[in-house]
Amino acid sequence: MPPSTCLFCRISDGTEPAEVVLATPDVLGFLDTRPVFKGHVLVVPRIHTGTLVDLSPALRDPFLAAVQQVAHAMTTALGAQGSFVAMNNVVSQSVPHLHCHVVPRTKGDGLRGFFWPRVRYDSEEELREYAVRLRLALDAPGVGVDVQ
Amino acid sequence: MPPSTCLFCRISDGTEPAEVVLATPDVLGFLDTRPVFKGHVLVVPRIHTGTLVDLSPALRDPFLAAVQQVAHAMTTALGAQGSFVAMNNVVSQSVPHLHCHVVPRTKGDGLRGFFWPRVRYDSEEELREYAVRLRLALDAPGVGVDVQ
Repeated sequence: MPPSTCLFCRISDGTEPAEVVLATPDVLGFLDTRPVFKGHVLVVPRIHTGTLVDLSPALRDPFLAAVQQVAHAMTTALGAQGSFVAMNNVVSQSVPHLHCHVVPRTKGDGLRGFFWPRVRYDSEEELREYAVRLRLALDAPGVGVDVQ
Repeated sequence: MPPSTCLFCRISDGTEPAEVVLATPDVLGFLDTRPVFKGHVLVVPRIHTGTLVDLSPALRDPFLAAVQQVAHAMTTALGAQGSFVAMNNVVSQSVPHLHCHVVPRTKGDGLRGFFWPRVRYDSEEELREYAVRLRLALDAPGVGVDVQ
């Protein structure tokens, strides 16, 4: 089989070096070599998966469990106070193989998790219009509907 | 029972209004009223959960499945090209009830997913030292160890 052209597949199959910190049959965690903060880990499914939307249902639990473990290790191993956990899907996704960034965070570290300028909906009507579009796509009940 | 002091618990039990877009027995998705981009959704477990690390194993699959559905709806309902999916744990966490941001993304929208200055490890030794600390905390095998 020719070597994979996907960097994270090569890391998963061991043909590309990486500082692996967590390895399970389904998921790998390794250091980002250009970290936002030192100790920044990328968690990936071993099998090639484009984006979060493409993640197989069978891998949801092992993938999120690994992210939880790594987020916990940010505090226990690195003394961080918390973590930033993020996935870029398609836009701003540097490697087209799903990867979850887990970044150690400490108050006053200079990184505000959401420091982009927020916008406002032009009106209550516009807010509701966005909700309707999403609800239709998600086939979900509206406000106040009991789904228990 | 007195009203919850937690905003997202009140949204979950219907005592605080929100534009709900997805509702399952375990998980709720609703519009952030101060979006990064219009259509920005917050996905929360209905039961009070502090951070990702605290999420019950039984809720991992339904929680991530809901996030997948909402991320998919960013493209199908809003015409976005992709999405940004993120959780702030403890630091920069505005409401102390786990919430996953799902933000629609389009190329050229002005939001770079990771536009913070990246840092470099001072040396290969420092990189490995961080990996060792995390590996010990995660009790994981090192590089090249086959865990299949």
